[in-house]
Amino acid sequence: MTKKIEICFSPELIHLHQLEDKIVVVVDIFRATTTMITGLANGVESITPVADLETCRMMAQSGYIIAGERNGIIAEGFELGNSPLAHLDSAYAGKKVAMTTTNGTVAIEKSKTNSSEVLIGAFVNLNATAEYLKTKDNDILIHCAGWKGKFNLEDSLYAGALVSLLSEDFGYECDGAIAMKALYESNKPYLKDFLSQASHAKRLQNHNIEEDIDFCLTIDKYDIIGKLENQVLVSQKVGGN
Amino acid sequence: MTKKIEICFSPELIHLHQLEDKIVVVVDIFRATTTMITGLANGVESITPVADLETCRMMAQSGYIIAGERNGIIAEGFELGNSPLAHLDSAYAGKKVAMTTTNGTVAIEKSKTNSSEVLIGAFVNLNATAEYLKTKDNDILIHCAGWKGKFNLEDSLYAGALVSLLSEDFGYECDGAIAMKALYESNKPYLKDFLSQASHAKRLQNHNIEEDIDFCLTIDKYDIIGKLENQVLVSQKVGGN
Repeated sequence: MTKKIEICFSPELIHLHQLEDKIVVVVDIFRATTTMITGLANGVESITPVADLETCRMMAQSGYIIAGERNGIIAEGFELGNSPLAHLDSAYAGKKVAMTTTNGTVAIEKSKTNSSEVLIGAFVNLNATAEYLKTKDNDILIHCAGWKGKFNLEDSLYAGALVSLLSEDFGYECDGAIAMKALYESNKPYLKDFLSQASHAKRLQNHNIEEDIDFCLTIDKYDIIGKLENQVLVSQKVGGN
Repeated sequence: MTKKIEICFSPELIHLHQLEDKIVVVVDIFRATTTMITGLANGVESITPVADLETCRMMAQSGYIIAGERNGIIAEGFELGNSPLAHLDSAYAGKKVAMTTTNGTVAIEKSKTNSSEVLIGAFVNLNATAEYLKTKDNDILIHCAGWKGKFNLEDSLYAGALVSLLSEDFGYECDGAIAMKALYESNKPYLKDFLSQASHAKRLQNHNIEEDIDFCLTIDKYDIIGKLENQVLVSQKVGGN
């Protein structure tokens, strides 16, 4: 039987999907999963996704670097917000990070139950994730973090990009996968322009973080995957890359 | 302030949208809203959307023609299922119909609270609905019935088509509207081919109702709109068409 790939557009719809034996790829392009992959690619030892600010704050006492964001802004008392740029030049190499964000960490939490494996994906490691998934026998569910429960453009287009890369190895009967593959393929030559229309990109522009947006839409900067192991995210090098 | 248009992809997400003062356009292309518009355009006096089979069945005793469908198949003891073709040649002209379907009637029910008006839309009256909406001052929410809570291709593309027709008169900041407008516009020349990939089209093909699918994807066959008034759907001719 052909392996299958499907998309869930929001954590609010995840209960409609079977997670059993599937690899779930969680995506929150602006900016949680991009930041996580960037941190891991820059030597962060592990990232612990945390649901709420209070728990995350307390982890500072156990030696964690704490990263907290709500509605696009760094939370009070946190060392890091949600900018991937903070991790460049191996700024936190060797450190353990605890992180909580508006949408991304919720999606990770909801992806754990019954699934075979949870990955985090971003444009910055698109191809690495695709190559890893090709080596596996599991069906795949791409879980878009969305924005406060709603469909969002950047996560959905990432999902379309991943379906497009995997379409020769996986079947995609899911209507969301058909739609997003087509949307990605027809807008691929001008992806950044198309995505600059996204409501969350506009929201971030208001915070003067155009550089973050630009970084989040960079494709294939890193050759690692991000994978949940024993409740923490760690990196794994994809063979041959 | 510019009038706005947005899309909700599933009744499971409708609680995330403000309905107040909005005109909600409910769409269930395969086949509930197409059948409703076809019935109304063929002289049906009114259509009462009913949530469950049992209530609908009892309405036969009050003189209603009862239409009931679950999972694409006519329900036991019902005169009509969910085929628009049954209404051609004014087969039920002058009659009152009570109707319950898998997805469409749920979406209508969930669209009533606080909204200014509820319309039903389909490709068969796409332009009539657009022309009517242009004359109104309200913001618009297109509510896709989906398939058992999930995103579906045909309802979402209808939403994209409506956004495309209204894009000069309405703002569309909603990511779903941006995505579906672009998807519709790039696939417009071969809409039927593209939509034949949809999972529900395949589901219906298994029931040997290709003729229904073809009919549901016919654009602008009728020049009426379908509108909920006092809990029943009635037709209204759009001026000038």
